[in-house]
Order: sequence, then C-alpha cells, then structure tokens
Amino acid sequence: MAHIDLGLDETRQPGIIGLMAYRPETGAALGALAEVLLRAPNSLSPGERELIAAHVSGLNECTFCHNSHAAFAAAQLDEGMDLVEQVCANPATAPIPAKLRALLRIAEAVQESGRKVTGELVDAARAEGATDVEIHDTVLIAAAFCMFNRYVDGLGTLAPEDRSAYQASVTRILTQGYVG
Amino acid sequence: MAHIDLGLDETRQPGIIGLMAYRPETGAALGALAEVLLRAPNSLSPGERELIAAHVSGLNECTFCHNSHAAFAAAQLDEGMDLVEQVCANPATAPIPAKLRALLRIAEAVQESGRKVTGELVDAARAEGATDVEIHDTVLIAAAFCMFNRYVDGLGTLAPEDRSAYQASVTRILTQGYVG
Repeated sequence: MAHIDLGLDETRQPGIIGLMAYRPETGAALGALAEVLLRAPNSLSPGERELIAAHVSGLNECTFCHNSHAAFAAAQLDEGMDLVEQVCANPATAPIPAKLRALLRIAEAVQESGRKVTGELVDAARAEGATDVEIHDTVLIAAAFCMFNRYVDGLGTLAPEDRSAYQASVTRILTQGYVG
Repeated sequence: MAHIDLGLDETRQPGIIGLMAYRPETGAALGALAEVLLRAPNSLSPGERELIAAHVSGLNECTFCHNSHAAFAAAQLDEGMDLVEQVCANPATAPIPAKLRALLRIAEAVQESGRKVTGELVDAARAEGATDVEIHDTVLIAAAFCMFNRYVDGLGTLAPEDRSAYQASVTRILTQGYVG
C-alpha cells in the first residue's frame, strides 16, 4: 500500500497510474513528458526508446516501471520479450545494433550520475552513427526514468510481480499513448 | 562546452537554458513540469519548494541547478541566501520549521533511491503536520531534480561558478515562471 492515501484501489491502478490519478496537475505534465520522449516522431523507434526506459528502470530496481516498459518495448520490437530480457541482463552481449549498444552505455552512466557521462562515451556513440539529437534524447530518457522510478518507489506504490498484470497498459499505451 | 553541438552561445544560455532552446519539444514539457511543481498554487510556498530543489541538486553535485535554485529560493524566502546555505549544508541544524525539516529528510532519501523512503520518514513528516499532498509533492520535486541534474550534467553543459551569473534567471523566473 502506498505511503499516502491515494483514495483509490491500487490493485486496479498500481504504480504511477494511481499517482497520476491522485494528482492530475502533475500527472498531466508527466504524461506529456513521457509522450514526447517515448512516442513522438524520432529517429530512435518507440521500441528502442522503451528499451532504454526498461533498462534504466531495471538498474534502479523499480519493479513497476521495469515491468511496464519492458512490456511496452517487447510489444514494439520484432524480437519481443526475449530481446528485452537479454538487453536488460547485459546490453554488451545482447544482439542489438552497435549504435543502440553505445547509447545504452550512455544511459547506464546517466543512471549513476550525470557526471559519469564522459566525452569518450559520447564519441563512441557518435562513431557508431548516433546523432546529437539521439544522444540528447538518450540522456534525457535515462534521466527521466531516474525521476519516474524514484517517484513510484518513493511513494511506496503497488508493483505487481506478475507480468500479465501489465498487459492492459500495453494496449492502452499502444493505442492512446501517455496522454490518453 | 556541451557534449553535443547546441548551436548557441553557452555563455549566454548555460545549463538547461541552452538544452531547452536546442530541443523545444522536450523543453516545453520540462518547463511545464517545473512550473506545476515549483510555482503552481500549493500549501508549500515557492521558496520552500525551491529549497528542496536546491538541496537535492547540491547532493547530486549539479552546479548549474544548485546555483540556479538556491538563487530562486533565496529570492523568495525572507531569510535569503544565508538560510539557503544553512539548509543545503545541513537541514538537521538549519533554523527551519520542523515540518520542512522532515520533508527535506524525505527528499534526501529520494535522492539516493526511491526505495530509501521508509514509512518511518513519512510518519515523521506527518507528525510535524505535513499533508499527503505535501509528502507527494516533496517526493516528486526531489525525483524531478534527480532528472534535471542528470540531464544538465549528462550533456556536459556550462555551469557558471559565479553566483552573479544566475541573477538574470532569478528575474525571469519570478516574473515569467518556467514556461515564459
């Protein structure tokens, strides 16, 4: 049960879903941010961006966000959940393009601290074909999930372990996006 | 100089200011989030909320955000920069109300990890009169600055050490807010 009284049934509105309903003023701003970061037109596909979100959430040990965005990534990548699990276990050995691997290394640095992102990590991504906007968006997606993860866990919200609990959200995100 | 080419003069648009100009799509979403968190009507004053932002940014060693929000807090608190410096040095001994001190302890936990926020910390804030919305907003402000700090430093943006460099932003935020 959450640390505060959300006035709703957390089994039906777990994680950030209940928080956005509890405080619609901040919920609207957070939804708009997720929409532009993860779904707006971009040279990184929605599946690739959800993969960055899922990996950072896994590193932050945020069960709700990790399970959610792993499911959203799997639904939008041809290789599905098998690939998502390989990436989240170890991007260095997962069968992904070198550019995405280099961007995930930047995301891992951001998860520790913005100050861990070095010129060498950025140069390595650029050498694999990453654009400045892709590097920018990778840093911001990773940073944003350091917020979302802390928000969801800092308020002690419910995080179902069972992956089937996230399927309704997959349908909602793929059809309505984050600002539905 | 930033890790990516922002196409602007960073001495005139340092830190997140240049990033928001470089990528207006994400800049608009981030500005709207800052506005609702730090300036919208709230039982916590803008000065108190900026103090939480400044303290978390200090813990994350983000020079740009710390100097910016310390200046914004000082401009909106009767006790000015002296109090801001005492709080950021040690909220436990700074001359602030017990409720704000308890909320700052929650913010410090969030800065480490959402999973560090315990029921005991939340109960302690509630015992000093904090409402559920105040506890919610404290967690989200602290979490948001774990994003803003990583964004600004992860892209290696310019962070003036000289506090006078932040005065133009004080005027802008106090008159136009974050969505100007």
